[in-house]
Amino acid sequence: MSDLFELTSEIRRFTTERDWQRFHDAKSLTLALTGEVGELAELLQWVSASTVRTDVREGRLHERLGEELADILIYLIMLADEAGIDLAAAASSKLADAARRFPAADFSGRAPSKVQ
Amino acid sequence: MSDLFELTSEIRRFTTERDWQRFHDAKSLTLALTGEVGELAELLQWVSASTVRTDVREGRLHERLGEELADILIYLIMLADEAGIDLAAAASSKLADAARRFPAADFSGRAPSKVQ
Amino acid sequence: MSDLFELTSEIRRFTTERDWQRFHDAKSLTLALTGEVGELAELLQWVSASTVRTDVREGRLHERLGEELADILIYLIMLADEAGIDLAAAASSKLADAARRFPAADFSGRAPSKVQ
Amino acid sequence: MSDLFELTSEIRRFTTERDWQRFHDAKSLTLALTGEVGELAELLQWVSASTVRTDVREGRLHERLGEELADILIYLIMLADEAGIDLAAAASSKLADAARRFPAADFSGRAPSKVQ
Repeated sequence: MSDLFELTSEIRRFTTERDWQRFHDAKSLTLALTGEVGELAELLQWVSASTVRTDVREGRLHERLGEELADILIYLIMLADEAGIDLAAAASSKLADAARRFPAADFSGRAPSKVQ
Repeated sequence: MSDLFELTSEIRRFTTERDWQRFHDAKSLTLALTGEVGELAELLQWVSASTVRTDVREGRLHERLGEELADILIYLIMLADEAGIDLAAAASSKLADAARRFPAADFSGRAPSKVQ
Repeated sequence: MSDLFELTSEIRRFTTERDWQRFHDAKSLTLALTGEVGELAELLQWVSASTVRTDVREGRLHERLGEELADILIYLIMLADEAGIDLAAAASSKLADAARRFPAADFSGRAPSKVQ
Repeated sequence: MSDLFELTSEIRRFTTERDWQRFHDAKSLTLALTGEVGELAELLQWVSASTVRTDVREGRLHERLGEELADILIYLIMLADEAGIDLAAAASSKLADAARRFPAADFSGRAPSKVQ
């Protein structure tokens, strides 16, 4: 059973029960997604780089992080549904692209640089 | 078959083959996610509110949108994996919360307001 | 008197009085900036495209918008100060670039497209 | 001489010469701002926490950072102008608020926490 498909169905039901489709154009949903990414960023902003890897795996930060990631996924699914996009297929195809663009042999332990 | 689980496996393989785990702390991944949400926003910024609903369903914008949503999902899954979070379960739980906080009877056709 | 210079001085004083320089590396400040842009986006997400131009100029939305834009400017100035960048000069130079790249004659009433 | 006022005038001239006011409603400008913050985030995402403080002050990263901060300031000024907000006054007022909420004596060397 596809869990993205399951979530899409749950989200559709939630939205139509409240008659909220009218608000869910792609520009508005992208602003909502930006809002949720902002909450995630706010959660992490002052966490020390030296402790962040353990901090996110336990305690209160872990729990809050789960909620923010969930909110982001919900708006992402709403956007995909609004645009008629199969998220799982799109992500698989993007990963195959990335594998071609960044051959493991050339990029081992080296992040692709945004500044030449 | 869980597609989020499938994608998580593909992404882990992609990452370890390149030895990129070292870059994938939550602060860096959140910056990467912000970068992808920025590309989505850039795609939609000047699209007219009156045509956006059809624009995202067809043509070049539809295709590009699919790629940006895919990139966002990939970093979201990396973040969930880094923090040991079950994204599908977290999203289901968040939806159940939202259903309680916004009863359909009270919020029909009315968006929750951020400004009182 | 330069108001960006004035604000930079105020912000430096605020930061050193609390010994917060230690938190203000560029990655953390960019996450904080993302958090504030998220709050701005959240404020606008469900506002109707047909009323937004008047909505932002009056009432409670106007006031809240002023606060969010202020927060964004504060983190932007912190980032510029951290990196030793003259924001006003950088913005003037970017505007001159944009004027060259988008000749008024060719782009009148037409937004530069992100999708060809 | 107010440099924010100067920049606002330059930006207004740039916009009206191209008849781009029609695109500059607050929702679209916030998407554009999100796009620029995304470019900033992308620039910093894989930079090491241990070198970022010197990296942003020199070389190619410094130069690119200046351009991204400039783009963010330009859209921020467009938003303030669209909403009729005095950015410098709003930021000063927000700083005075923050000084009250975070007394130096209580928050010395301690970041305000988003997770209790």
